[in-house]
Amino acid sequence: MFVPSNRLEIIGVDGLPEIKEGDDLTRLFLDAVEEGKLELEDGDAIVFTSKIIAKSEGRVVDLSGVRVSGEAERIAKETEKDPRIVQLVLNEAKVIVRMMKNHVIVETKHGFVCANAGVDESNIEEGKAVLLPKDPQESARLLKDEIEERSGKAISVLISDSFGRAFRDGVTGICIGVSGIPALVDRRGEEDRFGKIAQITKEAIADEICAAANLVMGEFKEGVPIAIARGLKLERCERDIQELLFNKEDDLFR
Amino acid sequence: MFVPSNRLEIIGVDGLPEIKEGDDLTRLFLDAVEEGKLELEDGDAIVFTSKIIAKSEGRVVDLSGVRVSGEAERIAKETEKDPRIVQLVLNEAKVIVRMMKNHVIVETKHGFVCANAGVDESNIEEGKAVLLPKDPQESARLLKDEIEERSGKAISVLISDSFGRAFRDGVTGICIGVSGIPALVDRRGEEDRFGKIAQITKEAIADEICAAANLVMGEFKEGVPIAIARGLKLERCERDIQELLFNKEDDLFR
Repeated sequence: MFVPSNRLEIIGVDGLPEIKEGDDLTRLFLDAVEEGKLELEDGDAIVFTSKIIAKSEGRVVDLSGVRVSGEAERIAKETEKDPRIVQLVLNEAKVIVRMMKNHVIVETKHGFVCANAGVDESNIEEGKAVLLPKDPQESARLLKDEIEERSGKAISVLISDSFGRAFRDGVTGICIGVSGIPALVDRRGEEDRFGKIAQITKEAIADEICAAANLVMGEFKEGVPIAIARGLKLERCERDIQELLFNKEDDLFR
Repeated sequence: MFVPSNRLEIIGVDGLPEIKEGDDLTRLFLDAVEEGKLELEDGDAIVFTSKIIAKSEGRVVDLSGVRVSGEAERIAKETEKDPRIVQLVLNEAKVIVRMMKNHVIVETKHGFVCANAGVDESNIEEGKAVLLPKDPQESARLLKDEIEERSGKAISVLISDSFGRAFRDGVTGICIGVSGIPALVDRRGEEDRFGKIAQITKEAIADEICAAANLVMGEFKEGVPIAIARGLKLERCERDIQELLFNKEDDLFR
């Protein structure tokens, strides 16, 4: 059962170098923790931005090498976007959900509905773009196992990105991969303060943790790529980010 | 400018009595802070669940007194919902956005797109339902002014609710009223780590704070109705929750 803690700490972990393909993120993270005189604790939830995961996996594309298809050209014209970026978006997409000027919303091959399939030109050299990690669920699992093995602590790992939302302006931190805790806490069947049984409340706890982490991460120059959420009381388990994604037939908005 | 803090604390404030119409929430909150041996600090962002605001404002409806219109009857049959609840939803709604079995998604008169117009039967006596606060932006402003006056601290107030989202299962904490800090931090024009100018990132900071607060609040028996977020470095300002809501013409999903 989910027992909310009365106090939660979100700690930014800074001091990592610029990440390159092949870098050992576990080692770099544990070094930064040590240098920052932080100490990992059992129960810590460690949130990594998708960008450093993607960079360590070599998911960086040089735009000058992108071959643009006719379809990408047409969409680029319609949306007034860079055709090479549109091509990368199409490569990463299962299906286009919405299009308008400056916006292509797709469902990615992982099943995430987001702008530009997460393809991002910020915080990378001019002329390059960063894709989402190939399999962020698997990346979370590997990182969790490695950090646990090397640190001896029982932790969880979440991979975060910033997505826009329908009906509300602005992006918020959301989760694209989680290992060691649930993504969704199902409270149906629990009693409320008046003994009534909850009917429908499922809480997207992994998204809330990534939103909280965003508050210490920032997105620009001052960017902090990792945050530790300490004080959560969550069941240890091995589930999957898929539990946050709707089956198409349950999705009111498709 | 937004400067992320390196460490953020989210502190649950418990020990409040069941809230009734006319209760002085400022007094009850400050008493609970004192009893909990917490001390308010300048810069604290105080998150109140919409439910206690609504209860203190008398936004509780006895379902036995609801007169059900023909339209509510029809929608109730189509969605298999309680016709009295549907009537309350229609009363609170500007327009219906989507309907299916068990679900009526509307835009409320405030402009929020959410299920059931926020009308909620949990954590209230059997046979009653709680509406959203009448004007949560104004409620946030009043609470902020009162808490500042009585405590002598420069704080901000956010009112939170739990909304579902398009494309992702589960609810997360979101903001429906904010006073003292921005709802949206616009980072367009800031430079990234490579000196490139950010093009589109606006961060829905008020929603992220309410999501973080949800992690210590819980929804059921153990419910904690208020949380303090400490360590945010945000510009003090008086803006409005409206900045999180799209103009209809900018909304890709309508």
